[in-house]
Amino acid sequence: MISKATIKKIHALDMRKFRRNERLFVAEGPKLVDELCATMKPVYIAALPEWISEKAKIVSGTEYDIVTPDELQRASLQKNPQQVIALFPIPEHKFSTEQLKNELVLMLDGVQDPGNLGTIARIADWFGIRNIICSTDTADIYNPKAVQATMGALARVKFHYTDLIQLLSQYDGPVYGTFLDGENIYGQELSENGIIVMGNEGKGISQGVGEMINRRLYIPNYPIGTQTTESLNVAIATSIVCAEFRRRCQ
Amino acid sequence: MISKATIKKIHALDMRKFRRNERLFVAEGPKLVDELCATMKPVYIAALPEWISEKAKIVSGTEYDIVTPDELQRASLQKNPQQVIALFPIPEHKFSTEQLKNELVLMLDGVQDPGNLGTIARIADWFGIRNIICSTDTADIYNPKAVQATMGALARVKFHYTDLIQLLSQYDGPVYGTFLDGENIYGQELSENGIIVMGNEGKGISQGVGEMINRRLYIPNYPIGTQTTESLNVAIATSIVCAEFRRRCQ
Repeated sequence: MISKATIKKIHALDMRKFRRNERLFVAEGPKLVDELCATMKPVYIAALPEWISEKAKIVSGTEYDIVTPDELQRASLQKNPQQVIALFPIPEHKFSTEQLKNELVLMLDGVQDPGNLGTIARIADWFGIRNIICSTDTADIYNPKAVQATMGALARVKFHYTDLIQLLSQYDGPVYGTFLDGENIYGQELSENGIIVMGNEGKGISQGVGEMINRRLYIPNYPIGTQTTESLNVAIATSIVCAEFRRRCQ
Repeated sequence: MISKATIKKIHALDMRKFRRNERLFVAEGPKLVDELCATMKPVYIAALPEWISEKAKIVSGTEYDIVTPDELQRASLQKNPQQVIALFPIPEHKFSTEQLKNELVLMLDGVQDPGNLGTIARIADWFGIRNIICSTDTADIYNPKAVQATMGALARVKFHYTDLIQLLSQYDGPVYGTFLDGENIYGQELSENGIIVMGNEGKGISQGVGEMINRRLYIPNYPIGTQTTESLNVAIATSIVCAEFRRRCQ
């Protein structure tokens, strides 16, 4: 049995403003909730009885409601709810410019689509990138659509929202970005550590941030110079760039 | 002014069955319609007056309706319709096993998400892959969601639906696929031509098709062997594999 107030609270967490006030986010489905529980402790769970009885360890010490499929449907933010809805505290990650010098870091400058954001988290996770720095106008990684798209990568990849220009002005390492008039990535030296900037889906990298990029890259199409779609999707471009950085370290 | 019958027809084209009978598909928005018109002739257009007056060349010889924003909204399959809706004939691409020997070709074995399918078309376009062969249980590239996600790549990339096992049994070139227990792609020889198989989002490559793959690849994560999300999204994996094949040809 789940209260109307709890259902209302879950639905309110679909809104960024409410997430900010409550410092909570929603994750759904057994696989995602399991992965997140490896590094985070939920504050509330609503689940079908079969999930609860299987997950005694997770449930222990956490407030929970055992719900019917119908209640789960009403509480869920998904079209097809799956067994469990969990509320987690939004983590407060600490982070310093100093720390950045010894890592490969992704920087997102105005990425708007929550699905792209979640997919980028998953790419970062695959390629061992532990920190993603987002401009304040980047979509919220704790948006339920983004959370679901991360497929659990949020358990391992940390997101930080900050003023990119201010941060870059304190950083003296290599800053990479992709541009249609950049240098062919396959002909460029790539460092083991550094910042890779990815831009907005339509507008690309903003002018101010672009001026602070000291390594301008380009992902060549094939055959080079042929007419094609004018750009790759931001998550696709991110994956190709990250794969190439990591290939060089093999 | 657009008739109720036409609106009904456009909406019916959201269904695969109806698209098959009518041999038509829907594309929306000025950019996408423009790109498609470079290689295809629409059979019908509904558009705002400003689009019609700008695109006299496209409209010439095509049946069209000038519509109000309200009519466009009612006719559209999109949440946010943009200026123009066009109906195009589904192209009948001819295709032979012989032809495959001289190309790099993508093969999709049960890809289900129309968004992934459209993104893969865009990747193929970028990397100069002209033919994509799909199993009959792969999502329909003429699904409106897939068409929109192609961003116009459909003007240049040809999709074929066929029995993959039958086709592969007539093909004696290299057949690549990615597997969690495959060989690190960066240590393998990759041919200029061949078939790259990508599998279903959840289940991967089907057993029958898997048995016909003679080059089993793996995209290494970083650091190699660390725990991570269990797989990359199929469009992401496609982009990394295609980029690596084309890098070798540079």
